[in-house]
Amino acid sequence: MTSAGEAEASLAKYSELTRRAMEQFLPAGQPFEYLYELMRDYPGRGGKGIRPALLLASCEAFGGRASDAVATAVGLELLHNAFLIHDDIEDNSPIRRHRPTLHELHGTALALNAGDALAALALQPLRADAAMSPRLRERLVSEFVSVVRKTTEGQALDLGWRRDGVLDVAPMDYIALAGKKTCWYTTVAPLRMGAIIGSHGTAALRDISRFGFFLGLAFQVRDDLLDIDEQSAQGKSPLGDIREGKHTLLLIHLLLTANPAHRAWLVEFLADENLRTASDCARVLQLMDTYGSIEFAKSFGAEMVDAARGSFPGAFAAVPESEHLNFLRGLIDFMQLRRK
Amino acid sequence: MTSAGEAEASLAKYSELTRRAMEQFLPAGQPFEYLYELMRDYPGRGGKGIRPALLLASCEAFGGRASDAVATAVGLELLHNAFLIHDDIEDNSPIRRHRPTLHELHGTALALNAGDALAALALQPLRADAAMSPRLRERLVSEFVSVVRKTTEGQALDLGWRRDGVLDVAPMDYIALAGKKTCWYTTVAPLRMGAIIGSHGTAALRDISRFGFFLGLAFQVRDDLLDIDEQSAQGKSPLGDIREGKHTLLLIHLLLTANPAHRAWLVEFLADENLRTASDCARVLQLMDTYGSIEFAKSFGAEMVDAARGSFPGAFAAVPESEHLNFLRGLIDFMQLRRK
Repeated sequence: MTSAGEAEASLAKYSELTRRAMEQFLPAGQPFEYLYELMRDYPGRGGKGIRPALLLASCEAFGGRASDAVATAVGLELLHNAFLIHDDIEDNSPIRRHRPTLHELHGTALALNAGDALAALALQPLRADAAMSPRLRERLVSEFVSVVRKTTEGQALDLGWRRDGVLDVAPMDYIALAGKKTCWYTTVAPLRMGAIIGSHGTAALRDISRFGFFLGLAFQVRDDLLDIDEQSAQGKSPLGDIREGKHTLLLIHLLLTANPAHRAWLVEFLADENLRTASDCARVLQLMDTYGSIEFAKSFGAEMVDAARGSFPGAFAAVPESEHLNFLRGLIDFMQLRRK
Repeated sequence: MTSAGEAEASLAKYSELTRRAMEQFLPAGQPFEYLYELMRDYPGRGGKGIRPALLLASCEAFGGRASDAVATAVGLELLHNAFLIHDDIEDNSPIRRHRPTLHELHGTALALNAGDALAALALQPLRADAAMSPRLRERLVSEFVSVVRKTTEGQALDLGWRRDGVLDVAPMDYIALAGKKTCWYTTVAPLRMGAIIGSHGTAALRDISRFGFFLGLAFQVRDDLLDIDEQSAQGKSPLGDIREGKHTLLLIHLLLTANPAHRAWLVEFLADENLRTASDCARVLQLMDTYGSIEFAKSFGAEMVDAARGSFPGAFAAVPESEHLNFLRGLIDFMQLRRK
C-alpha cells in the first residue's frame, strides 16, 4: 500500500507534467489585464492534481504512456479551472486556494467572461495532438461533452435546492447530487478517459465508472469534512460550506436528526444567506458535533472508501499489476487521509 | 434591391429552418426546472435570425444547399444564446426580447450554469452531421474556437473599460471593439462558415471577412441608435445602453465634444452605475442630441453601409448571380432600416 507521502509525490509529478504541457495553451494575448491574465490565474495557483493523476495513471495502467494522455489531461484541467471560476461566482465564494476568488479580484463580469474563454480552450489540446487517431479523439470529445452535461446538471440541482430552500434531502439525494456534481469530472471521467487512451478504446468502462463513483464520493465526503477542520490547508474560507448553505452530508444529517427547536433555528439560518453571521456558522458546527453529524460523515466516508476498494479489482481486471495500478490503489486511502 | 419586407421574410424563413433543426439539440432532461427549462428559454424567444440567414445564404451563394449548413447554423445559434445569457449577467441587463432576462427570472447562479450547459452543446450539431467530411468539420470547429476567442476578447475590453471608467475612447477604438465583440460572431463568422461549407473549403475568406466586418459595424451602429429610439421594438430596456454606461458610438462622440462642464457631469454619471437615475439617462440623451452625437452615429452608420456595399463585389467575385446573393446584398440596406 502506498503511503500518503508517496501518493502526494506521485500526484505532484503528474500535476507538474500536465502544468508544463498546459503552458502553450494559455496564450498571452490582448487584452491581457482584462482577459488573458485572468485566464492564467487559477491554473497558476496549483491544486491537488487529482484529475491529471487519475487520468495519466489510468492510461499507464492500461498499457499506454503518460505522454499519450497528457493533451487530454490538459484539456480537463482547463475545463476544471473554468468550472472553478464560474462555481465561485455561483457560490459567492470569497477565497480559492488561499487567495481571493477571481470575481473578488476583478469583478463578476470580467471573471465570468474569462471562464467562458478558458472553457472554450478545453478541446484545443486534443485537437492539436497529431499522434491521436481521429476515432479516439472523437470518443474523448464525447466524454468531455458528457462531463459538462453531468456537472451542470449536478450544479443546477445543488444551486436550485439552495435557492428554493429545499430541506427534505436524504443521504440518497446527496449521493445522486455528488455523483453528478463531483464524481463525474473529478474521478469517473479522468479514469475513463485514461482507460480509453491506454487501451486504444477497448477497455470496459462500466466497472471503471463504478470504482470512480465510489472514489469520488469518498473525495466529496472528505471535502465536506475538511470544510469544518480548522487545521486543513484547503485554501477556502473556514466553514465556507456552512456559510453558503451547501447540502453537505453533515448538514443533511443534522437536518434529519435535529430536534424541532434546533431544526426550526436551522431552517431560519438557511433561509437568507445574507444574514448568516460567523457565530451562527459556529453554532451550526456545534450542532453537527452534538447530533453526531460529523461522526456520521466520517463513517459514511469510510464506507465509500471500502466500496471503492471492493470495486477496484473489477475495474482493472483486464490489466496486469504495475506501479501505476499500485498508485491508483493507494489513492483510495489517500481520499480519506488528505489534508487539503 | 430587396425591400425591407422581403429581407424580413427571408430572415424568417432561414430562422425557422434553423429553429426546427435546433429542437433535437435542446433535450428535456433533468433537472428540468433548474437547468433544461432555462436552456430552452432564450432560443424559444425568437430573435432577428441574422446569423443563421447570413450563414445559410452564404452557403447557397457559394453553390451549397441550405441543408448542408443548417447544423452549423444551429451550433452558432446555441453559442449565441449562451453568450446572451452570460452577457445579460455581465451587463446587469433586466430585459431581453421583451421579457425579464434569465438571471432576473432564476437568479444569477442558475442562469450562469444554464449558459455553460448551452455553450457546451454548440459543437454537437456539427458532430452529429454525418454528411459533413471530417476535414470540413475540423475547419468549422476552428471557426467556432475563433469566434469564442474574438468575442470574449471584445467583451473583456468593453467590460474592462466600463469597470475602470476609461473615457478616452476614440471612434477607432470603437471600431476595434465592435469588430471583436459584435462583427465576428454576428456577421463575419456566419458569412465565412457558409462560404466554407458551400465551396467545400475553397472560398477565399479574406474579402468575405472584410465585407462581414463593415456589415457588422453597420449592424452595431444601428443597435446603438435603436437603444435611444422610443419607437423601436428591440425588446430591451429603453436607454439600456446609457444606463449600463456602454461605449456606444453616441457616448464616445459626446465625451469627445461636450464642453468641460457637461463632460464633468458625464464623468460623474459614468462613475457609479448604481446612482444613475432615469432622469439622468434622459439628460444624457438630450446632450447627445444637443452635441450632434445622434447625427454623427447616423452618418457613421451610413458610411459603414457604403463600405459594406463597396466590398460586396470583391467578397463574392467567385460566385454567379443568384437569389441568395441578392438576399445578402439586400441585407446591407436592411442593416440601416431595421426596427429591431
